Amino acid sequence: MSEPGKKRTDLNELGEFGLIDHITKDVVLHNKSSIKGVGDDAAVMEFGEQYTVVSTDLLVEGIHFDMMYMPLKHLGYKSIVVNLSDIFAMNAIPKQVTVSMALSNRYSVEAIEELYEGIHRACKMYNVDLVGGDTTSSPSGLTLSITAIGQVDKDKIALRSGASPGDILCVTGDLGAAYLGLQILEREKQIYLENPGVQPDLEDQNYLIGRQLKPEARLEAIEYFQKNNLVPTAMIDVSDGLASDLFHICTQSNVGAILEEGKVPIHPDSEVKALAFNMNPITAALHGGEDYELLFCIKEADLEKVRFMPNVFIIGEIVDKSDGIKLHTTGGKILPLEAQGWKHFKED
Amino acid sequence: MSEPGKKRTDLNELGEFGLIDHITKDVVLHNKSSIKGVGDDAAVMEFGEQYTVVSTDLLVEGIHFDMMYMPLKHLGYKSIVVNLSDIFAMNAIPKQVTVSMALSNRYSVEAIEELYEGIHRACKMYNVDLVGGDTTSSPSGLTLSITAIGQVDKDKIALRSGASPGDILCVTGDLGAAYLGLQILEREKQIYLENPGVQPDLEDQNYLIGRQLKPEARLEAIEYFQKNNLVPTAMIDVSDGLASDLFHICTQSNVGAILEEGKVPIHPDSEVKALAFNMNPITAALHGGEDYELLFCIKEADLEKVRFMPNVFIIGEIVDKSDGIKLHTTGGKILPLEAQGWKHFKED
Repeated sequence: MSEPGKKRTDLNELGEFGLIDHITKDVVLHNKSSIKGVGDDAAVMEFGEQYTVVSTDLLVEGIHFDMMYMPLKHLGYKSIVVNLSDIFAMNAIPKQVTVSMALSNRYSVEAIEELYEGIHRACKMYNVDLVGGDTTSSPSGLTLSITAIGQVDKDKIALRSGASPGDILCVTGDLGAAYLGLQILEREKQIYLENPGVQPDLEDQNYLIGRQLKPEARLEAIEYFQKNNLVPTAMIDVSDGLASDLFHICTQSNVGAILEEGKVPIHPDSEVKALAFNMNPITAALHGGEDYELLFCIKEADLEKVRFMPNVFIIGEIVDKSDGIKLHTTGGKILPLEAQGWKHFKED
Repeated sequence: MSEPGKKRTDLNELGEFGLIDHITKDVVLHNKSSIKGVGDDAAVMEFGEQYTVVSTDLLVEGIHFDMMYMPLKHLGYKSIVVNLSDIFAMNAIPKQVTVSMALSNRYSVEAIEELYEGIHRACKMYNVDLVGGDTTSSPSGLTLSITAIGQVDKDKIALRSGASPGDILCVTGDLGAAYLGLQILEREKQIYLENPGVQPDLEDQNYLIGRQLKPEARLEAIEYFQKNNLVPTAMIDVSDGLASDLFHICTQSNVGAILEEGKVPIHPDSEVKALAFNMNPITAALHGGEDYELLFCIKEADLEKVRFMPNVFIIGEIVDKSDGIKLHTTGGKILPLEAQGWKHFKED
């Protein structure tokens, strides 16, 4: 890989999204059953009366989770939930998952039992079947690869690309809490590493830590849409942060958006903790990530249907592309919204 | 994970297959569309007129491939092919793949381009669409997770469990070559590490090295079955080695088998190289693995249909379970066949 004379471009020059674009830009779909490939929450295939959607995630120890504060049962649970969240983001119902893992000898059979207890619990909670996978050894640490498979009526699928100016922007729950939970756990880890005798006091921070360690996916929103015959014009799950995920919708729908700062739901515990960390709470909500709430757009005519939806917040509006993607602050200012930068590739 | 008083069972006490059994033994399939879960080459789902089959593999640097002798283009190609092989082993036609990768900063953009050149080439060769995936960083090395999705008419699916006494046992090509190719590459690596100035001479070993670095999956066999209206009673791809994979068929079909040593196809280059390594060529064929040939059973009545199949070898017969799984040697002896032991989980 380091032959003399060969060009070497560092991965960080492209970043994750840039790299994905780069390696998939020439992909053309040939099979009739391939409806939508790279670029949404899940791939879409047509195998019968309905669409089949498939989403896949790779979770790496030391990158996505830290064994010092992530109990294995929670890791198993969360790894399933984050994939189901991608299926829900297509307005589909997940039916099956496969779980592959690479693990080193450092893990005992009992540890893996704990991991699978969480996996089985999530499967039961969301009524999906564990149908396959692969198990192999790893030179170090634990890597999990989860694939989720779901189904949706063809006329009900919600891509990222269907939003139009005038659509109402909604989200299914409060934002920023998972990020703040992670900050608490990271801080406790540092304290523990410096003073192994100190017992952490996390009692009053259950909500934030729970949102980080044991997130839930928004099945009930999809069920509400079905019951009320409502199809979002565009939808995505908030995994990278509200700003970044709103950018995905706007880019793919070729529209702009205006976000009302005062309408973005933030839990009281998040408010308090953000301020304790000297951070503006809206910053945690905009850029935090890992909330796994659904961000979706509806036609204005469907507003009545959303009014009685539990746990839904109207946070803005889709506008013309030329109007850009803006934040209307509580102070009355209109500021350009910025998507969070991509994460760096870790040094070897 | 090492709390005092907690039982700790080493992963090696169970091994890979034991671990899979252990963590999936309580899985019950709840969804109507989940037809077959863990335990075959692929999971089977019913989403329409046909069955959808899904297979997934995790490939880890330092376990499944070694960058010292595995060019990235070949790695990309092989990682797709081995998954398609699992789809063919269900008598299905692969349609889509997803590719996820975790990679460290050690890899350049150009290196990943090479990897994807191989991936795209395999997709083109086998007419499958790359429809999704996930890209993330890794603390060290490269991990690839591939999922392949295929389709098969419901009455054409070939599980591992359908073989009956009297069925004929066939294989689509010669065995042991990929294993011997690996031995050559491992030996050259050692020579290089000890004397970096020595140039390897691999000219006359192209066949064996090619079988290791650039395997092909047996699409043409599945096409032949379709054209000739032939459905194998059981099928598996030879990834672990002929003996081990025959054991999978026998265990799941609840039958025994007798394998004719003299009929097992072995390439002349494999014969020569095995002897040079002081190994009985049949040992490489029985336990080598990674050949990705299809091992399948047919009813005796279908023998005529197989006679004109190119590259097929009749290597034995399915017998009663009580007769065991035996090797009929060229010397006329009947010996019990042993499956290769599971691989150890690597120390951290």
